[in-house]
Amino acid sequence: MQTGFAMLEAGLLRQRGVVNALLENFVDAAVTILIWWGVGFGVAFGTSAGGFIGIDTFFLSHLPGADGSYPMGAPGSTAAINTYTLFFFQFAFAATASTITTGSMAGRTDFVADLIYSAVMAAFSYPIIVHWVWNANGWLAKMSYHDFAGSSVIHTVGGWTALVGAYLLGPRPGRPAWGTLPPAHNLGLATLGTMILWFGWYGFNAGSTLGTGNTGLIGLIILNTTIGAGGGALSAMFYQFFRSGKWDLVYCLNGSLAGLVGVTAGCAYVLPWAALLIGLTGGLLVVWGIDLIEAVQIDDPVSAFAVHGINGMMGTIAVGLFGQPELTMNKKAGLFLNGGFELLGIQLLGLVAITVFTVAFAFLMFGGLKAIGRLRVDSKADVIGIDAYEHGASVWPDIYAVDQLEESAKHSHNPAVGAYEGE
Amino acid sequence: MQTGFAMLEAGLLRQRGVVNALLENFVDAAVTILIWWGVGFGVAFGTSAGGFIGIDTFFLSHLPGADGSYPMGAPGSTAAINTYTLFFFQFAFAATASTITTGSMAGRTDFVADLIYSAVMAAFSYPIIVHWVWNANGWLAKMSYHDFAGSSVIHTVGGWTALVGAYLLGPRPGRPAWGTLPPAHNLGLATLGTMILWFGWYGFNAGSTLGTGNTGLIGLIILNTTIGAGGGALSAMFYQFFRSGKWDLVYCLNGSLAGLVGVTAGCAYVLPWAALLIGLTGGLLVVWGIDLIEAVQIDDPVSAFAVHGINGMMGTIAVGLFGQPELTMNKKAGLFLNGGFELLGIQLLGLVAITVFTVAFAFLMFGGLKAIGRLRVDSKADVIGIDAYEHGASVWPDIYAVDQLEESAKHSHNPAVGAYEGE
Amino acid sequence: MQTGFAMLEAGLLRQRGVVNALLENFVDAAVTILIWWGVGFGVAFGTSAGGFIGIDTFFLSHLPGADGSYPMGAPGSTAAINTYTLFFFQFAFAATASTITTGSMAGRTDFVADLIYSAVMAAFSYPIIVHWVWNANGWLAKMSYHDFAGSSVIHTVGGWTALVGAYLLGPRPGRPAWGTLPPAHNLGLATLGTMILWFGWYGFNAGSTLGTGNTGLIGLIILNTTIGAGGGALSAMFYQFFRSGKWDLVYCLNGSLAGLVGVTAGCAYVLPWAALLIGLTGGLLVVWGIDLIEAVQIDDPVSAFAVHGINGMMGTIAVGLFGQPELTMNKKAGLFLNGGFELLGIQLLGLVAITVFTVAFAFLMFGGLKAIGRLRVDSKADVIGIDAYEHGASVWPDIYAVDQLEESAKHSHNPAVGAYEGE
Repeated sequence: MQTGFAMLEAGLLRQRGVVNALLENFVDAAVTILIWWGVGFGVAFGTSAGGFIGIDTFFLSHLPGADGSYPMGAPGSTAAINTYTLFFFQFAFAATASTITTGSMAGRTDFVADLIYSAVMAAFSYPIIVHWVWNANGWLAKMSYHDFAGSSVIHTVGGWTALVGAYLLGPRPGRPAWGTLPPAHNLGLATLGTMILWFGWYGFNAGSTLGTGNTGLIGLIILNTTIGAGGGALSAMFYQFFRSGKWDLVYCLNGSLAGLVGVTAGCAYVLPWAALLIGLTGGLLVVWGIDLIEAVQIDDPVSAFAVHGINGMMGTIAVGLFGQPELTMNKKAGLFLNGGFELLGIQLLGLVAITVFTVAFAFLMFGGLKAIGRLRVDSKADVIGIDAYEHGASVWPDIYAVDQLEESAKHSHNPAVGAYEGE
Repeated sequence: MQTGFAMLEAGLLRQRGVVNALLENFVDAAVTILIWWGVGFGVAFGTSAGGFIGIDTFFLSHLPGADGSYPMGAPGSTAAINTYTLFFFQFAFAATASTITTGSMAGRTDFVADLIYSAVMAAFSYPIIVHWVWNANGWLAKMSYHDFAGSSVIHTVGGWTALVGAYLLGPRPGRPAWGTLPPAHNLGLATLGTMILWFGWYGFNAGSTLGTGNTGLIGLIILNTTIGAGGGALSAMFYQFFRSGKWDLVYCLNGSLAGLVGVTAGCAYVLPWAALLIGLTGGLLVVWGIDLIEAVQIDDPVSAFAVHGINGMMGTIAVGLFGQPELTMNKKAGLFLNGGFELLGIQLLGLVAITVFTVAFAFLMFGGLKAIGRLRVDSKADVIGIDAYEHGASVWPDIYAVDQLEESAKHSHNPAVGAYEGE
Repeated sequence: MQTGFAMLEAGLLRQRGVVNALLENFVDAAVTILIWWGVGFGVAFGTSAGGFIGIDTFFLSHLPGADGSYPMGAPGSTAAINTYTLFFFQFAFAATASTITTGSMAGRTDFVADLIYSAVMAAFSYPIIVHWVWNANGWLAKMSYHDFAGSSVIHTVGGWTALVGAYLLGPRPGRPAWGTLPPAHNLGLATLGTMILWFGWYGFNAGSTLGTGNTGLIGLIILNTTIGAGGGALSAMFYQFFRSGKWDLVYCLNGSLAGLVGVTAGCAYVLPWAALLIGLTGGLLVVWGIDLIEAVQIDDPVSAFAVHGINGMMGTIAVGLFGQPELTMNKKAGLFLNGGFELLGIQLLGLVAITVFTVAFAFLMFGGLKAIGRLRVDSKADVIGIDAYEHGASVWPDIYAVDQLEESAKHSHNPAVGAYEGE
């Protein structure tokens, strides 16, 4: 998944910030594994303190202790295998949450701030929500809140954190007028990234059966996931064609991701016809969501909130509407299947709680960084580009870019172009 | 696989049609999943009408019906898992068949036409052939026609459809003289795409053991697949070096794909020495095939017919020549293993039937689109490029391309270059 | 893995040699499969002659013989499946060893020399070391030498062969002064390649449990692998920031690979805290290693020796330091776990033997090629670029590169730019 996000983000940004985005995506995985091992996994899956937070299992402490015993199973035992599998699978989820955030904050975040917020998210804000929902003793888990593979736990959390970060940062330098998205600079990479994500999503959604012990649902999950992605791609593409007269690749890619995000909560709880409705809705919501974020003048370079935030919430609610009684955890049906408001009500309650906590945490975290002057990169970077300022590098140094040519035209002492112009 | 084809195609095309190719590949998957779910899977694997076409199981109707029963197994049951697995696996095959077609029609097809023919192929032309060969009650299946993983069902069907489409479309604007292929514009993406395809092929060929219930053959299948790919890559590369004095990357990539296509029908029925012969033959045939298509003046931008059509037929016939009696379905040996003409005869019969049906269907389908004026994109797109015309986008808008520079040189009012030239 | 190395290498090289690198990586896999099938696998896993070399099982001769018997198990039997699985898995390892070498010899090696040395490595130099370590009757295997997934067998062998090759070749034309690495020309591809490698490494390390029959360790292996990669990425990035003031993407990528290489030998024998130390050490060693190779004036374009050679040795030694007694094959502990020098001594003995053999073999192999004048590409290629000379191609023919513009400025008769300049 990290690979997919890195390529998508590198493809959608302007060229001058691509090295920054690649490094942030890459190093996020490195930071997350260490923090998740040391802190986050314990916060999420350790013994529960009142259903709100885990308080042990840091550094996977079931490994042999000073006395040679193995509190959580000896290496090679079933108990150890299950813990390790859960650990690794959930690590991939944790890395996804902070990577979503990276996308909307791209191109103007201080690099040290990126390292810090990735670590804090992996240690606290993300695993606390996991504890609520996926720890058997979490308070939402006990209420049979339904989020199979993370529409709210991963995508809503990532989306809201992303939005708060982008809001506190302010827009990128040289952004076009609100309402016009800057062109994606490499649609080949963006498409590659989206396809890798689509493929990786099968692992996320199907792999989430690990926790349930019911692998027999994998077939339905994969079908629902695919239908959600296809529905989102088509509705976003057709709707944008209806508005603009162009068959728009970026909207089609974002539509498929919106469908995937939406279907993630319910992929094991709804039937394919509902997955199609969820996907089609996701494709429309992402188009409106992009408009909305532009209208409120927040610069979200990869539309992370429209894709992940809005559709994560939609998908969570959709379980309350379309939940199939023979598939839900507590045999309740959704509102549109004559199940009444019970299932829907718990979904809404959980969503509100998750959103309030996440937004508050994000304001504290990013506000703190802003207060110490480390949230936004030095204004020198706005002039020369964040790649040159933070990383001393250019993603394709051999290739002239449009803005380099323009820049060169102004400074006739650039040696390479100087020779050329000297004719 | 879709990812591999998208990258290969994006790499082999001229830059002005890359966005179009990316979107077509991406959205083909979206169209195919919905159509395959609604219609195609039933046509292929539903109850057989006389061995020619399936007539039920549309929308995977074994999901709970109005009466709450599960005609094809309750969710989680073995029957349901098997059906879902088959469905998803065959969806990937179906998407491949229409993606092959997309490649040879790239750069000048009306986008709506692409959506329509992808849907029609996923609903009828492809699944009908699947029904003949892979439905236990199909007429070719009953005759023990051998096509393990799709040399004829996928690649011959895709290749012939591609050729008819390319023929009816006419060449791309600005194509060089016949006999000279336009240069691939991004060999990095093309190589990436081919490597992804090679890797994905293991899934296709090994996964096809699902239908046979004999997973013990996976080892032989993977070995044969790899040897076929390697043999094709080497024979195409050496032969092209012998002709041109250059070690040609594109021919080497196409050679490996030709070897893979060729070995697909027989990967479970022949021994490794035969897989090597098939691969080496594929590498030569693809070189001659490209020459042939150029000689008859059909513009096939990704050489889809030479790779998939010709080598799909070769691979199907090869089972009739090299079939190993202890491995074939009916314990018959191929011609060169002293098995006589029986196995070979059935392979040829099936191949002729598949080709005749596919070519006829393709002429009807594309001819109909042409008759209503929707096959080829508006001639304005020939001037400004299909990416600009249909999609309002450029794949790398930040980067000057050679033809942009040339174009700019003619039109001094282009603002970016104008400023530059104004010095 | 081949895909990852191809993209990494294509990204790190100068543009004029990218087609060459892509083709070498691609065709190496094709050459290796045929040679490995015919010779290498038998040399590695055939009946042992004194613990030094295998002498049968060429062409996987357990397939049906002239008498119809199956010496190594009939198709579909467990024995045959195990052999095939081992064969394919070890093929991927073999291709990796010669691909590592390709990287450091990039940009100036005769293409025929590349084909020859890839074949010789797949037939002899690599499988002989495999025989010593991974054949149950190999002389190092009998001494309980520990290399779980190839820090020494693959990476040390690949690294030393690479260094000898790069030394005998001399530097690339137009290389900058020693101490300054040429800029990577496509950091997007390099990042993609590294991410694919990181992902592929799970297959390599976890898959190596196949030989041990103990799949229960997969969880620990995957955790250690991830921690090693993360630790290497972070220590290289921070250390390079400390030296240069820039957050350097290339060093971060190389650091993660160094951590992966280092943790490969011990991923099943050490605990996570040791994996973290190994990763952090790898990240520092790769930075110093790059300096060292520059200081001795050997041109290693992808830093293959610093990444694979140095860290392969470090990882092998680390098992002797951190080996966990309940996890090692002979229940011995490493030096730092109060196990004394026995485990460490055997690791050092094996490492010296592997290094001496590999270096001697590489001097013979590359020295022979140099003696017949086929090691380095014709000097004409130094002028026009190896892509143009050997392959008649350019990786992105549509896109102007900086050096093309510079070159064009000197030769006003270049038609494309001539027209432009003629204004």
